[in-house]
Amino acid sequence: MTSEEEPFHSVESILQEFIPEEKLRLVNSVLYGETLRKLDLSSAEAESNFDVAGYKFEAKPESSRQPRIVRVGVIQNHIGNPVVSTNVPQERSAIYERVGRIIHQAGRCGVNVLCLQEAWPMPFAFCTREKHPWCEFAESAIDGPSTKFLQALCTKYNMVIVSPILERDDVTDVIWNTAVVIDNHGRVLGKHRKNHIPRVGDFNESTYYFEGNTGHPVFETEFGRIAINICYGRHHPLNWLMFGLNGAEIVFNPSATITGLSEPLWGIEARNAAVANGYFTCAINRVGSEEFPNQFTSGDGKPAHTKFGHFYGSSYITAPNGTRTPGLSRTRDGLLVAELDLNLNRQVRDIWGFQMTQRLPLYVDSLTKASELSFEPQRMK
Amino acid sequence: MTSEEEPFHSVESILQEFIPEEKLRLVNSVLYGETLRKLDLSSAEAESNFDVAGYKFEAKPESSRQPRIVRVGVIQNHIGNPVVSTNVPQERSAIYERVGRIIHQAGRCGVNVLCLQEAWPMPFAFCTREKHPWCEFAESAIDGPSTKFLQALCTKYNMVIVSPILERDDVTDVIWNTAVVIDNHGRVLGKHRKNHIPRVGDFNESTYYFEGNTGHPVFETEFGRIAINICYGRHHPLNWLMFGLNGAEIVFNPSATITGLSEPLWGIEARNAAVANGYFTCAINRVGSEEFPNQFTSGDGKPAHTKFGHFYGSSYITAPNGTRTPGLSRTRDGLLVAELDLNLNRQVRDIWGFQMTQRLPLYVDSLTKASELSFEPQRMK
Repeated sequence: MTSEEEPFHSVESILQEFIPEEKLRLVNSVLYGETLRKLDLSSAEAESNFDVAGYKFEAKPESSRQPRIVRVGVIQNHIGNPVVSTNVPQERSAIYERVGRIIHQAGRCGVNVLCLQEAWPMPFAFCTREKHPWCEFAESAIDGPSTKFLQALCTKYNMVIVSPILERDDVTDVIWNTAVVIDNHGRVLGKHRKNHIPRVGDFNESTYYFEGNTGHPVFETEFGRIAINICYGRHHPLNWLMFGLNGAEIVFNPSATITGLSEPLWGIEARNAAVANGYFTCAINRVGSEEFPNQFTSGDGKPAHTKFGHFYGSSYITAPNGTRTPGLSRTRDGLLVAELDLNLNRQVRDIWGFQMTQRLPLYVDSLTKASELSFEPQRMK
Repeated sequence: MTSEEEPFHSVESILQEFIPEEKLRLVNSVLYGETLRKLDLSSAEAESNFDVAGYKFEAKPESSRQPRIVRVGVIQNHIGNPVVSTNVPQERSAIYERVGRIIHQAGRCGVNVLCLQEAWPMPFAFCTREKHPWCEFAESAIDGPSTKFLQALCTKYNMVIVSPILERDDVTDVIWNTAVVIDNHGRVLGKHRKNHIPRVGDFNESTYYFEGNTGHPVFETEFGRIAINICYGRHHPLNWLMFGLNGAEIVFNPSATITGLSEPLWGIEARNAAVANGYFTCAINRVGSEEFPNQFTSGDGKPAHTKFGHFYGSSYITAPNGTRTPGLSRTRDGLLVAELDLNLNRQVRDIWGFQMTQRLPLYVDSLTKASELSFEPQRMK
């Protein structure tokens, strides 16, 4: 599945291979923060076609609060058939088969809250700008096939699953890019529609859906307060901010993004958001290339082609103090598990004081002015 | 000057030493973005006690606009006497002597806009929480000794200098943490007072000064529109945002921060701001340890001590596409020069569309609600 142009597994594997241990410790302390202990995930069964990794984010003990431990999981994966056919149910089934195997492992690892990648039950066909047949992948958030498929797994493993899908509104037929939150009893807790839509190269997604109308909801699960910042929304600090102001403790960023476009930004944005907002973030990207039946162009002056990608994976999790896990592979499917003590959020907020020093009223005033047509920027000549 | 505990020069020097060239190219493409060409800085004279490095950020040629080339420089340095006396003019002179030598080199490198580190004309004495004698370092922005010292250099080298000082208001005696912008004709173009003040460990700076009252000014220089986000303001995405909305093309972040507190965040925050706001950012940190006459404590349960630091340097410059320079040393004084084509800002904004997709009115509405005492967060149970 590894494409020839993109053979390398990860930055971390290169660092590990060549840098002596003592020096690597220094490099990692600057690039990744504190050293994280690995989780014992021997309850997962070894499978050859995806990686499983797990880390532990610890907080200081407090005399007034018990630790608030939660295991989160993120899954990155290729689609079922890298050469996509126009038979929608068939393509969807191949993905369910592939992702289902990994979800079972997440269950065996004791994951409490799992998030899948953006538009996980479909190829990322938006590059084609063809409506037929790809719009057939759009489905109901409440009782579509993907929700039904996951509900059984939620119940089986007592696990919340965040399911980012292409949603078709049951009444109006409008299509949205939506994350459905299914709780650990298999009930749909709610949904969030992607707030910011890209118009970039192969990601002219505004062809298919509009800016979301669901605000910045935070979902109160049995395992903590979660929110979802879908893909391109990670470029918008205000989006991250509002999830924080609404009380999110963990924000997932299910994404689909490719080498040559965003990779130098990938390690920065979700991580910066964790620090700025005092919560955990989980950045998830799909993996591999996807080939479509018809030619398309990418808005870059290059010849028409049928292959899209390489999606570079590299999913990772960051704590509010900026410490992050290594990334999953750039080329292979994977399950990344992290055990979080949610007490760390408040501990880090107490240390840094970003919430106290934020001066929100100042910015309400400035942004109000800046959003008016008569706005005059503050300039000194 | 290198302290025993902090012997390593930089992450980049370790990567360079151990990773083979072909693999290093891959690592750097993920960690640092595009490969930057080095500037020819042979006009600078070799000096043994500081480093000089220079890089070039290029933009695509356009048929309707000429390139807009500007050379920016940032200086990181130890104070003049690492063991600080209470003789304020003497300490200040030692710093002028040390920094002056580097400024001359910046002039010889053709730097158009230069920025010094936070509170550059003084030791970072705020850790002591003693008012006497350190408040004596506070000086007029208009005609204080540091402004006068720099005005001559601005004129000599046709160079704008951003001078972050401890400012004493000429009328009220109030002290501020201020960046003074002196233009290339030696005139004070204006000043900006630090908007967000830390209360963290050795950085209980609210003892000395209050949150700034100058908004988010952008200074229109002959070489481009610049702004200054002072130190702890880099943790606040809204602060970066307002400088962007006011039209900044280059935002300097003069700082003073130490190992063990912020280092894993250092490479993220100013870089994320460049990406999110479509401008260049220049992150500057001082270097080394500073020793004070009297003992102080650091709010961390450890015994009283007299030594403060290690400030870890690592100053760097980032383009709006996320590509960044290597950092200056963690241990040595340095001058980092970058030649920017400011056309890159608009080119990257056109590619990514973050300004178009920002939905400012949505956030004005949400933040207005969030700043009210009656605010009810958007939660789903």
